[in-house]
Amino acid sequence: MPPGPARWPGGIRIAATCVCGSDLWSYRGVNKVPQPTPFGHEYCGFVEEVGSAVRSVKPGQFVIGSFFASDNTCPNCRAGYQTSCQHRELVGGAQAGRLRVPLADGTLVPTPGMPPEDIVPSLLTLSDVMGTGWFAADAAEVKPGKTAVVVGDGAVGLLAVLSAKQMGAGRIIAMSRHPARQKLAREYGATDVVVERGEEGIKRIKEMTDGIGADSVLECVGTQESMMQAIRSTRPGGHVSYVGVPHGVSLDAGELFYTHVRLHGGPAPVRRYLPDLIDLVWNRKINPGKVFDLTLPLEQVAEGYRAMDERRAIKALLRV
Amino acid sequence: MPPGPARWPGGIRIAATCVCGSDLWSYRGVNKVPQPTPFGHEYCGFVEEVGSAVRSVKPGQFVIGSFFASDNTCPNCRAGYQTSCQHRELVGGAQAGRLRVPLADGTLVPTPGMPPEDIVPSLLTLSDVMGTGWFAADAAEVKPGKTAVVVGDGAVGLLAVLSAKQMGAGRIIAMSRHPARQKLAREYGATDVVVERGEEGIKRIKEMTDGIGADSVLECVGTQESMMQAIRSTRPGGHVSYVGVPHGVSLDAGELFYTHVRLHGGPAPVRRYLPDLIDLVWNRKINPGKVFDLTLPLEQVAEGYRAMDERRAIKALLRV
Repeated sequence: MPPGPARWPGGIRIAATCVCGSDLWSYRGVNKVPQPTPFGHEYCGFVEEVGSAVRSVKPGQFVIGSFFASDNTCPNCRAGYQTSCQHRELVGGAQAGRLRVPLADGTLVPTPGMPPEDIVPSLLTLSDVMGTGWFAADAAEVKPGKTAVVVGDGAVGLLAVLSAKQMGAGRIIAMSRHPARQKLAREYGATDVVVERGEEGIKRIKEMTDGIGADSVLECVGTQESMMQAIRSTRPGGHVSYVGVPHGVSLDAGELFYTHVRLHGGPAPVRRYLPDLIDLVWNRKINPGKVFDLTLPLEQVAEGYRAMDERRAIKALLRV
Repeated sequence: MPPGPARWPGGIRIAATCVCGSDLWSYRGVNKVPQPTPFGHEYCGFVEEVGSAVRSVKPGQFVIGSFFASDNTCPNCRAGYQTSCQHRELVGGAQAGRLRVPLADGTLVPTPGMPPEDIVPSLLTLSDVMGTGWFAADAAEVKPGKTAVVVGDGAVGLLAVLSAKQMGAGRIIAMSRHPARQKLAREYGATDVVVERGEEGIKRIKEMTDGIGADSVLECVGTQESMMQAIRSTRPGGHVSYVGVPHGVSLDAGELFYTHVRLHGGPAPVRRYLPDLIDLVWNRKINPGKVFDLTLPLEQVAEGYRAMDERRAIKALLRV
């Protein structure tokens, strides 16, 4: 979808977009892409035109939406699971100058006014990565004073640390062996960093929690190893959330049974959190935009993929 | 372990015991039993003698305990997961006249006095099957007015129906194709009975819930088919509990991810519920003992296994 005037009824002019960790599954060939396909599903920008049935969104507004469009009125939406909306549509093609967003009334949330330039990156994160980190903490029922472990030091994992901090976790253990990411994790509220992985990582978490395991473990990767590490690091009756699309992950229900853990995850219902998270960003209570450590013009999007694939960048922001 | 005087420090004289659905896994040869092994883990009876370190249990008391002995003081016990007690011991050999129960202080709960004969079967169920049905409803977060589906019409499933009713579920759908069990399910509070299974069963539940799925689904079997049926019958964000030991059940995390369900199960922490459930039985608020539709003298225990294996009996009570 090339930048250019909107040629459809309704659309937004993108202010900023970015590359998602999940885009890398396709980039690496794990997910097959059999034909030319518009990419990108994270966006914020200015409403240019709306369809005739749209009521709550107006041209000129600055808006943010989720990677799944949702009507926000069906029973699943009302239950807070907009990513399971009965009329959901995956938004694609946000790595572009303009984007048509279906179900605009249910999907898009306007900011209180025109945002200052410096908070646009943070607003952009609310479209997916920050909302996903928030869901990780929410689904793992992070509670004040309790211990949260975050498995994964990608942008979602780092923002899961920030979210756990906002929810009052007393101890936040970030699992990371990457100095720059460790640093940002600490800035976002991590009290401890564990570099060990797999069995060694589980052993460290158990040592740090009197042999019991953590109250909440936030799995932000989506591999078999990270999932098992999360499950085995949790105390009996504790919570494991998983927000990275699982790739070939199989769970033995017999093992799960004897761990007594609670499991909850899925595509984050970002729409549920948008109003509150916009408020936090607007009032400069949180700065999730710091996960963007590489900014490129949209034309250099390919370099964004490369840098993230090679782990030279946490997350690449694309300026339009 | 033959009936006879206790030859160890501490033990109870069993008033009644029974055969568990999980005993059938061994009876059928699915679980291997390589050597003569004392069986049975459900019990209630009279304290005959206590070890020198025992403080809270006294000879002469009528007591009930869980199938897992627990200290009831470790962090896992304090969190309510006594079946993950750091010092847990599986109780074996309850299909006998006498039984030694380890960790007596943490494991055994006395009744308020000597029970009338007619409530002994109900008290016996609190040792496992009723506590397990209760955990199924609790772990699936059954709430007043909400819809609960129970997969499995064995004794645990039937008592899960009773538990869901106690917790105020507005609609309770029992999945059963067995007339006598359907009848007891209705008596325990089932508002609907669904005879279909697998894909057809899922379709029926969806039809009955406006295409959304149920709020809580209680999986009381432990097979691949019953687990998938439970997961696929649940609304996004809804709860699946599983309390039957899973046998060869494997979950595809990718599918689980897109269902948005919450999963919680394990060996039921029966000890957590004992005081409240004793109270309900003692005051004749619930009658879980009705699941015993066959009563035999202990010497005829083999017939109890046969009758349950052939589904001629829901559950066999053994009189000592």
